[in-house]
Amino acid sequence: MTRKAAILGAGVIGAGWAARFALMGWDVAVFDPSPTAKATVEAALDRARASLPALYDSPLPPEGRVTHAADLAGAVRDAAWIQESVPERLDLKHTLFQEVQAHCSPGAILASSTSGFTPTELQAGAQRPGQIIVAHPFNPVYLLPLVELVGSGETPRDLLAKAEQVLDSLGMAPLTIEAEVPAHIADRLLEAVWREALWLVKDGVATTGQIDDAIRLGFGLRWAQMGLFETYRIAGGDGGMAHFLRQFGPALKWPWTRLMDVPELDEALVQKIAAQSDTQSGAHSIAELEAMRDDNLVSILRVLKDRNAGAGAVLRGHEAGLALPAPDPDTPAMPVTLDRQVPVTWVDYNGHMNEARFLQAFSNACDQLLHWAGMTPEAIAAGHSVFTVETHIRHLDEVQIGDRIRVKARVIEGGGKKFHIWQELWVGDRLCATGEQMLLHVDLATRRSAVPPDRIANWLARAKAAHADLPWPEGVGRAVGQRA
Amino acid sequence: MTRKAAILGAGVIGAGWAARFALMGWDVAVFDPSPTAKATVEAALDRARASLPALYDSPLPPEGRVTHAADLAGAVRDAAWIQESVPERLDLKHTLFQEVQAHCSPGAILASSTSGFTPTELQAGAQRPGQIIVAHPFNPVYLLPLVELVGSGETPRDLLAKAEQVLDSLGMAPLTIEAEVPAHIADRLLEAVWREALWLVKDGVATTGQIDDAIRLGFGLRWAQMGLFETYRIAGGDGGMAHFLRQFGPALKWPWTRLMDVPELDEALVQKIAAQSDTQSGAHSIAELEAMRDDNLVSILRVLKDRNAGAGAVLRGHEAGLALPAPDPDTPAMPVTLDRQVPVTWVDYNGHMNEARFLQAFSNACDQLLHWAGMTPEAIAAGHSVFTVETHIRHLDEVQIGDRIRVKARVIEGGGKKFHIWQELWVGDRLCATGEQMLLHVDLATRRSAVPPDRIANWLARAKAAHADLPWPEGVGRAVGQRA
Repeated sequence: MTRKAAILGAGVIGAGWAARFALMGWDVAVFDPSPTAKATVEAALDRARASLPALYDSPLPPEGRVTHAADLAGAVRDAAWIQESVPERLDLKHTLFQEVQAHCSPGAILASSTSGFTPTELQAGAQRPGQIIVAHPFNPVYLLPLVELVGSGETPRDLLAKAEQVLDSLGMAPLTIEAEVPAHIADRLLEAVWREALWLVKDGVATTGQIDDAIRLGFGLRWAQMGLFETYRIAGGDGGMAHFLRQFGPALKWPWTRLMDVPELDEALVQKIAAQSDTQSGAHSIAELEAMRDDNLVSILRVLKDRNAGAGAVLRGHEAGLALPAPDPDTPAMPVTLDRQVPVTWVDYNGHMNEARFLQAFSNACDQLLHWAGMTPEAIAAGHSVFTVETHIRHLDEVQIGDRIRVKARVIEGGGKKFHIWQELWVGDRLCATGEQMLLHVDLATRRSAVPPDRIANWLARAKAAHADLPWPEGVGRAVGQRA
Repeated sequence: MTRKAAILGAGVIGAGWAARFALMGWDVAVFDPSPTAKATVEAALDRARASLPALYDSPLPPEGRVTHAADLAGAVRDAAWIQESVPERLDLKHTLFQEVQAHCSPGAILASSTSGFTPTELQAGAQRPGQIIVAHPFNPVYLLPLVELVGSGETPRDLLAKAEQVLDSLGMAPLTIEAEVPAHIADRLLEAVWREALWLVKDGVATTGQIDDAIRLGFGLRWAQMGLFETYRIAGGDGGMAHFLRQFGPALKWPWTRLMDVPELDEALVQKIAAQSDTQSGAHSIAELEAMRDDNLVSILRVLKDRNAGAGAVLRGHEAGLALPAPDPDTPAMPVTLDRQVPVTWVDYNGHMNEARFLQAFSNACDQLLHWAGMTPEAIAAGHSVFTVETHIRHLDEVQIGDRIRVKARVIEGGGKKFHIWQELWVGDRLCATGEQMLLHVDLATRRSAVPPDRIANWLARAKAAHADLPWPEGVGRAVGQRA
């Protein structure tokens, strides 16, 4: 069932929301009278299409339809989620919410991207205060999972629960905050760093480039995977957190930070920072920097997913709901065992998908088939698995980054110790590679070949029988360099 | 030439320095009278051996010898680098430096890991003040590249330049700070965040787990690859940094942070944080958390290296100096084309090196051979390259994470459009896999086969001739499932 989201205000944040909703299959109605709104949304959609699907090893739902509404009423009508991302002026938001509530469904979620205002402030004077909540995302919204979710005493708990469900379904990580404080949590931490950084630049202690290096070559790497407290817990060693705090306590009183007041952001400081930033990053356009940032984030998020750590655990949970449907083993057709977009991390110096990633695709696809056959994490934990003993890959055509690849599989031999599989990798109607593999069922305790459990043997034997009458694939049993 | 480092104080930081120096080939003398010092250093060495080499696709130099000195004089004698990491008490450091300078070479670098004191404070009363500098690293020292390097007016510039060279050679990223301020740069930013976080916990706004999620699911991901200013530059869009600052300026005056004073870290707050931290992380021992952190950092650093971004660019620069020596193509022996440790990111659910990583190893090794033959980045930029058309891999034995693998290559056909290569992957004296590949030289403009440039053709033809009389490898020309 396609659902509709209304995006009110399409700057960087609103456009990011639009892209996230659309790529997760929602229809999106954008309302922003600015003449640049369409271009901003299109740019965000392009960046999201190049990055968000690349986080997943399964296909996303079909993209929703993005339209630009001529008036607010049309945008919010029938919307299940209404996201406000207009400038941070309370009077503006109040006026907007009044008009929204005159036209939207009372059951819709009306969420604000505000970083500064509390729900109570936003709800003041509203027709239905309980409908308005804070859902504060982080740029780029289509890649970063965090959303700070805040309600007030007026907010029904089931509305917050519903909001959490929707955000989960978008692949995001709602962090529901019980207390209303200005700037929620993350921006308070960011503000603190920002002020200190301004002092360091103003006083000539460091340039913007040096401060950025001090972050991304040191603690920034730590914070991509563990936060502040868990990191310090480790530093405290086996003495534990209380030990660390008692040791660290005295240092807290040292006059280290300049944060006792706020630096005057006068024109001289603005110019100083702008000039240093030009020196640091001016060689790249904003679009180039955005692409670099997104490619870096995709790369980091993908390895965190492999490790099931931090934001990668969020991705894993979401991906579990995107798995391909299990085929009936008796169907006389090669099942689709992999369906995915080629991520940027799979590129090589020839600008296309690297040869090793073909084997990764075949390996993942084969794992999917075996999983359907019964080689579940539980079966593996019980000591059953397969080891590949031989592989023959033929590259028939190039595959590009961003291409959607599909792998189909034929069971040539299966049901006993040996498992012989034929795989084809397609982009649309182009056969780009074939992979022929011989695998052995093994006992993980002895690391030697073994007969698979009945359930797995039976499934593979049925698939072999169902595939037996399909045309014999061209290329099976071929050695390297051998002609047809 | 092996050089010697003296490590004075072997807590978490000192032990991390010892591991970094030793794994980069330095002999290390540790001086720390604590009864736990040996165990701390051994644990750091174990973690470093499991992680630091995994960052590189080339072998590190042979590990240096780590000894524990009975007295300070013995530790610092003949040391080229002396690193002090004792507790943060100025009187303690002054006493130590006096004794060090009585025994060390005047040409040695005497660096302090202090996070709080300035070089001028450290140098007070010293025999040779100019010899003492700050080299402030970040935990884990054996993985994070950042080192804040600070001197005083007494510090000779060439000593700082020498220190930068040494840190570069250790794979670290020295950030030389011109001004002396308490806590340098990074810890000022960290302190600001820490204080704000303490307020949030104390006031019951958020738990330690929520604050950690607010970091690692949002801005922490950004900061692993770009810092504060570059991230905000992007947020400013094409209006540039000055535009962003003018827009952001007013918000800076909002009463968002509680940092106007320092929260009282009384026993109640200590217990509150400790209990929340237990809830958040108590299921894992510190050793487990350290291993998770290190595996995550290795994963993140490796993808940043692929993208040449942030800390990954530091790794790339360092790795360039670790490349294998180019062989003479006329030598009648298979050259070693890859020599590396198997990183944790190459594991699969069977607990060993995944099959796709065998092809990655063969692919990288083949690229190395072609690079020696003249397929340089310049040649590729000029439109010359190779595409793999066929691969046959036989898995003869398992390879484990942490194993040191070596690939050897034989040119079966080379010099014309076709390039036929035979590769063997060894762990010690175990042949674990063979890879037979057929590649085509291509013109990258037409994506079609082409005759390689003379230089490359000539090198490969010579290698083919030199390998021609070697024994014919068992397994060449074999199809999947075909017996000898």
